[in-house]
Amino acid sequence: MNIVLLGAGNLATSLALRVKEVGLNIVQIYSRTVSSAVELSSVIGCEGVSSIDDIIEGADIYIVAISDRAHVEVLPKIKFNNSLVVHTSGSIDMETLSAYSNRYGVLYPLQTFTKGRLVDFSEIPICIEASDRDSFNSIERISNILSNDVRRVSSKQRRELHLSAVYVCNFVNYLYGVAEEFMSKSSQDFDILRPLIQETASKIMSISPKEAQTGPAVRFDTNIIDMHLNRLEGEKEQQEIYKILSEAIYNRYN
Amino acid sequence: MNIVLLGAGNLATSLALRVKEVGLNIVQIYSRTVSSAVELSSVIGCEGVSSIDDIIEGADIYIVAISDRAHVEVLPKIKFNNSLVVHTSGSIDMETLSAYSNRYGVLYPLQTFTKGRLVDFSEIPICIEASDRDSFNSIERISNILSNDVRRVSSKQRRELHLSAVYVCNFVNYLYGVAEEFMSKSSQDFDILRPLIQETASKIMSISPKEAQTGPAVRFDTNIIDMHLNRLEGEKEQQEIYKILSEAIYNRYN
Repeated sequence: MNIVLLGAGNLATSLALRVKEVGLNIVQIYSRTVSSAVELSSVIGCEGVSSIDDIIEGADIYIVAISDRAHVEVLPKIKFNNSLVVHTSGSIDMETLSAYSNRYGVLYPLQTFTKGRLVDFSEIPICIEASDRDSFNSIERISNILSNDVRRVSSKQRRELHLSAVYVCNFVNYLYGVAEEFMSKSSQDFDILRPLIQETASKIMSISPKEAQTGPAVRFDTNIIDMHLNRLEGEKEQQEIYKILSEAIYNRYN
Repeated sequence: MNIVLLGAGNLATSLALRVKEVGLNIVQIYSRTVSSAVELSSVIGCEGVSSIDDIIEGADIYIVAISDRAHVEVLPKIKFNNSLVVHTSGSIDMETLSAYSNRYGVLYPLQTFTKGRLVDFSEIPICIEASDRDSFNSIERISNILSNDVRRVSSKQRRELHLSAVYVCNFVNYLYGVAEEFMSKSSQDFDILRPLIQETASKIMSISPKEAQTGPAVRFDTNIIDMHLNRLEGEKEQQEIYKILSEAIYNRYN
């Protein structure tokens, strides 16, 4: 099975490394950025191209791992000749691919990818759907080789999943960053927070977030809340974030 | 060394179990709630009392692990006779204890505690300070038996630490809870998010939150942001939280 990979960003890189690791065959990698195409393709050991015209025709599957915004720029220019076209995005409806091929689907690995950081791909949930039974079978076969956790997820469910991922990953990481700044400004090491961060994440593997909720807001401890809001007096944005999240916690759990 | 423990909540329970585990000697546990005092003291194998008048005098150290709000109600009524009095709170200034004894300090274990959930106490950072050198040495000696990570932290630094802990624990857990609700409402299992939650927490053990930031807000991907804000149209509180956090991420990283 010949795979063409479109994209060389964080997700494309992690995916390509995993595809190579499990012995699947990437024949070509496309990226608009020449250096990215060259770099990733040389690691994988395949052709790297940065011109759409050089993308080969007739591959068995085209895996689209470019940014969501690039879909409408890049995909209409590619001759897919009704090969199987699969995108990897959390937020794009599968049916958008019907404009480019009559065989299409989604292979969405739910994880945050950073170049240079290896993740255990076998544990990453892969959410799949397809235009037809044959395409579904192909995508499922590949996904089962890549990961032990493959799930059928509709476009509608995938949108909710992606929204949830923004909350538990992007928003959470932002809060880590704010804390890092508080610590740095008070001459303390961020690493002192690491056991707490780890335990907060681990706790909800066995108990629900509702049971796990602690802190001044759920206790409605106005002394501490007011003290913190006072402390944040000079940082309006943080004061607002502190306030809205504390109110939301109180509203949810009381 | 005879220890009297005041409190039988989440923190007091975890602390008492660790104190017993390392072979230190709790002689008495006080809790306003009779059942809590009985329950925890029977596990630890010491006297449990629920009346302030029954608290023994002349212990070597009194560890205050009651809620912040209970400090001013409970502590003035106890005869400490200038024994060492140590509180365990993230947000209360050490000097407040000077009203009750002339030997005092802080032993603040930075972790989120839930009854019935065991944590590896040896890895919990314990933040200590004291009124005088002798008291500091006593608190440090005990802390070093309880944990491998003992740090001198001033009251001012501890306040920043506690504020940071609210961000990386309480606020983060709240976001987990919102995601759980999105998932449940779209008939999906919350556990699909667990590898992402774990990786988001693990990532910042080796790279800074700044480098780790991904997602639509940092990319200023207005298509996705607008799509999510539209999706949240019927949930004003979440729409506001999504908006303020996305703007904050954009402001911070661009």
